[in-house]
Amino acid sequence: MSQRLATNVTKDHIHDAIIRKLDVKSLADSSSNTIRLADCGCAVGPNTFNAMQDLIEIVKHKYKSQCPNSQNPEFHVSFNDQSSNDFNTLFTSLPQEIHFFVAGVPGSFHKRLFPEKFLHLVHVSYALHWLSKVPEGLLDKNSPAWNKGRIHYAFAPEVVVKAYANQFAKDLERFLNNRAKEIVPGGMIIITNPSIPDGMPFSEIANGLMYNCMGTILYDMVKVGLLSEAQVDSFNLPIYACPPGEFGAVVERNGNFRIEVMGLTNPSPWLKGRINMPEYIKHVRAATESMFNKHFSYEVTEEMFRQLLERLEEINDKMVSCYRDGVQLFAVLQRL
Amino acid sequence: MSQRLATNVTKDHIHDAIIRKLDVKSLADSSSNTIRLADCGCAVGPNTFNAMQDLIEIVKHKYKSQCPNSQNPEFHVSFNDQSSNDFNTLFTSLPQEIHFFVAGVPGSFHKRLFPEKFLHLVHVSYALHWLSKVPEGLLDKNSPAWNKGRIHYAFAPEVVVKAYANQFAKDLERFLNNRAKEIVPGGMIIITNPSIPDGMPFSEIANGLMYNCMGTILYDMVKVGLLSEAQVDSFNLPIYACPPGEFGAVVERNGNFRIEVMGLTNPSPWLKGRINMPEYIKHVRAATESMFNKHFSYEVTEEMFRQLLERLEEINDKMVSCYRDGVQLFAVLQRL
Repeated sequence: MSQRLATNVTKDHIHDAIIRKLDVKSLADSSSNTIRLADCGCAVGPNTFNAMQDLIEIVKHKYKSQCPNSQNPEFHVSFNDQSSNDFNTLFTSLPQEIHFFVAGVPGSFHKRLFPEKFLHLVHVSYALHWLSKVPEGLLDKNSPAWNKGRIHYAFAPEVVVKAYANQFAKDLERFLNNRAKEIVPGGMIIITNPSIPDGMPFSEIANGLMYNCMGTILYDMVKVGLLSEAQVDSFNLPIYACPPGEFGAVVERNGNFRIEVMGLTNPSPWLKGRINMPEYIKHVRAATESMFNKHFSYEVTEEMFRQLLERLEEINDKMVSCYRDGVQLFAVLQRL
Repeated sequence: MSQRLATNVTKDHIHDAIIRKLDVKSLADSSSNTIRLADCGCAVGPNTFNAMQDLIEIVKHKYKSQCPNSQNPEFHVSFNDQSSNDFNTLFTSLPQEIHFFVAGVPGSFHKRLFPEKFLHLVHVSYALHWLSKVPEGLLDKNSPAWNKGRIHYAFAPEVVVKAYANQFAKDLERFLNNRAKEIVPGGMIIITNPSIPDGMPFSEIANGLMYNCMGTILYDMVKVGLLSEAQVDSFNLPIYACPPGEFGAVVERNGNFRIEVMGLTNPSPWLKGRINMPEYIKHVRAATESMFNKHFSYEVTEEMFRQLLERLEEINDKMVSCYRDGVQLFAVLQRL
């Protein structure tokens, strides 16, 4: 789910990298004076417009300082998400007055979406953590990575974490390979993503407690006969929060992009008191509900989220204490 | 509503013009080996995919003969229609295996939709006859063009026809000016549109009888108190079937395009017996219903189409006899 260029800290870092490194003049010259942007995994707005608008302002600013006497380039923005995304809502909620050309591009960003050397700036925010599939071995009784008793790698043995990490690395590699074809040399990818400090187990951050809690609720529902054990055994949330070190290693191994900026920040302001849990669950639900609905009945999903609120309220203090560390990765990659 | 490159006659003419005149090599060379197409007023498919697929095949064929030793270019297809178009259906009904890159472009084609010099081939089929607004004067009691007693220019005085023709000319001019900015020199616009032989009154073709019949039904509903006279007086179908002479004059006056091919054909095979009227009404309804629904209640629209079937069955023979003339314009324009 695309987010407006997150916190001010992140925004400053990204702004700074673009201002320092993007050669807007040569990009515009090589493409009939058009700068082309894409938001990969854009969802339905308004965050996606705002993020694109922010990027355009940065590029305009750079252009003005780099070529003070030239006419501003035109901007062409592609909003990409799965074909099942609600593009109708995205399009009809476009602001009346926008100063760029709009396109909606349906399809998985793990495949090619654009012609060669088409794009100058790609934005991908809160989208890469969705794995393209459940990691191999997790569903296999005979595999050491069989994830019985959990629906995620939080609180799981190392072999399960590794399976998630491997799938993420494969997906990121594929994403980079496809974008490498589509982005002109000197073009950039701007990434924000759920993350975690290097070396920290996922069980120590708030989302880890939450995913674990979801699993417990579902297995408790098995005990009272609301659903079968096999149904929960065969479900795993395909979400991986990659730590910066691992992320950087994949980018370097891929070799198509240089890391201009990378770091961790916190997506939310520092929490002093308690988490507003109904609000928190609302966001979690918006992001993950469809995964549950694909696998479980409507009633099971409803009941799971109902109980989740109760149980997370009980560990509200513990979750607050987890908010101490940066759990949002930001990175700017430049196409070599 | 986009239609597959209509009849074989039309297709042959269009095919021929592209093969003769499109310099695919220089187009591909000047744009990183990508050929970019757009379907303006595409609706929801499958006609729009088929039409684009047909055009791509023609271009590939030409490319193969013009540059036998080069790699095929990539194809980038933009599907354009109003923001209110059902892009979700369009995207989810895309064939699984397509060999071009897809974008949906929301917005009126009477405005700019693409960056400068972006497009190579534009397809616009059964879309230009929709006027951008009801022609001036038609709703004004004090204007000589006040269209009291009718909902269209069929069977109307010359001044009403003229008002429609003027609005069409303005709209076409605007369409051409905007596309002229977006299409590279040598690029083409391929047009099919409802039309009529030069000099023939619209009352002499089947659609003329039908629009007139719609008006009669609505005014009859006024007589029995189902709706107010003012409601019908303030409704006019914004549809104009431009004859080729008039069409050509606008293109020439505009000056941005050369007419490579233009002619009239018949959209349907020659009718020997009676029109399958329920089928005919179904098509008419699909194309025009939303206009009625914007102005009249659901019940009035339902009742109008119900009565339309009865009344058109009564003049089935007369309508068949109207099918003798070409009422579909086809044209290929090349950007100078």
